Amino acid sequence: MRLTSRKTVTVRGRVIGGEAPLICLPIVAIDREGVLRQAAAVVECEPDLIEWRVDKFEALKTPQKAMQTLEAMRAAIGDIPLIFTCRSPGEGGFQSLDADMRLQLNLAAIASGRVDIVDTELSGGEAMIGTMRDSCRHSGVKLILSYHNFESTPDEAFILDRLATAQRLGADIAKVAVMSQNPMDVLTLLSATCKARRGEVATPIVSMAMGEVGAVTRVAGALFGSDVTFAIGRESSAPGQIPVADLRASWRALGLR
Amino acid sequence: MRLTSRKTVTVRGRVIGGEAPLICLPIVAIDREGVLRQAAAVVECEPDLIEWRVDKFEALKTPQKAMQTLEAMRAAIGDIPLIFTCRSPGEGGFQSLDADMRLQLNLAAIASGRVDIVDTELSGGEAMIGTMRDSCRHSGVKLILSYHNFESTPDEAFILDRLATAQRLGADIAKVAVMSQNPMDVLTLLSATCKARRGEVATPIVSMAMGEVGAVTRVAGALFGSDVTFAIGRESSAPGQIPVADLRASWRALGLR
Repeated sequence: MRLTSRKTVTVRGRVIGGEAPLICLPIVAIDREGVLRQAAAVVECEPDLIEWRVDKFEALKTPQKAMQTLEAMRAAIGDIPLIFTCRSPGEGGFQSLDADMRLQLNLAAIASGRVDIVDTELSGGEAMIGTMRDSCRHSGVKLILSYHNFESTPDEAFILDRLATAQRLGADIAKVAVMSQNPMDVLTLLSATCKARRGEVATPIVSMAMGEVGAVTRVAGALFGSDVTFAIGRESSAPGQIPVADLRASWRALGLR
Repeated sequence: MRLTSRKTVTVRGRVIGGEAPLICLPIVAIDREGVLRQAAAVVECEPDLIEWRVDKFEALKTPQKAMQTLEAMRAAIGDIPLIFTCRSPGEGGFQSLDADMRLQLNLAAIASGRVDIVDTELSGGEAMIGTMRDSCRHSGVKLILSYHNFESTPDEAFILDRLATAQRLGADIAKVAVMSQNPMDVLTLLSATCKARRGEVATPIVSMAMGEVGAVTRVAGALFGSDVTFAIGRESSAPGQIPVADLRASWRALGLR
């Protein structure tokens, strides 16, 4: 019934962009102990995907510590696909990091063999994206190119352009997250997602309207072409996420899973 | 958070168009026994409103029997507000009835003192609507003027016009229900509802996209300006309705009630 993706992406047996929308739960913690405690809790919720928001990790500037924690996290989460994300402060991240240090951290994660997907921002520029993309292809890691706006919802054409640009620059998955201030903003995000899916964007799409009124897109976005929703397992990573049990109940009501 | 109505309607203490969207459960049965069995079951679900879809009632052409059943139904449902609806086959009704007989049935219900709201179709014409409206005003009964399309979703301007016309002809509540074939149809219905609410329609609005893909509007419509949703208590009365327990869980997840 929902609009599925023309090109699906499969990681560890999970199909992104297929009939069933997927649930991703974030891990957002300041140290190794917190990360591993959350990993254990999140696994209990049986998510389809887990995202480590490494930008919350205190020892971010010591990539070796992050990689050691990643090794332990992978042991804790078993075969659940892992997204590795170091978000910048301008797009909702918790800590700032020099662009080159962020790139080196991402490249280390890609080379580690312990992550399945990395997410980096379109605003990082084509040179950085090219380096990330080549490294991902070499290691068999999938690439999310993302756009976040924590202030407002741009118009539909702009959102469509961000999704199409992500695809053009080699993203395996295109992502947009915008802040909704009112119900019309929510419809703009859903309409842009639907038009991208039915139009030029063949890759899986992840889209959401953040904020209280946008929370409905966490539930309903799957119908309009968003293939993954981020929910609250243990800790929220962005405004408007809803608890995973409520999300599953809502999807059942809508016949989505 | 949701878009509330500028003019609210209060029946038996329930506010239609206020902060909380309301749940209406239908009674759809062929005879007195079935009606009363459903009434008892529906009351257990604690709906905000109950609608008797009298067009399913076999003895429709004997208004006296319908009125006797109405009397028993009112005793069964206590103080829950009741919508009395005799839908025509062209707009989703179960039985055909001569236009004048339908009007006489509606006038008898209005005069009975046992119904709080009556629903009649815009397509019935201004003369019939004027008679119904005068009778409602005289008896303190609220009037829903409705438009149903079981084939397709007209464009946004047409849906807006139906809602505005309902208000212009004296509706206390304006209703549109359209069949959605795809996700863009769903966005058209939600956008029309939102624009009516923010624009010229001051009355409460009831809107929904019917069909499988439209089921999301039963949950999310409240955010965009729909004040009542019809759910399944015992029997469905239109395609895409979802069980009342699932609806409540979804609304809790979205912070709606």
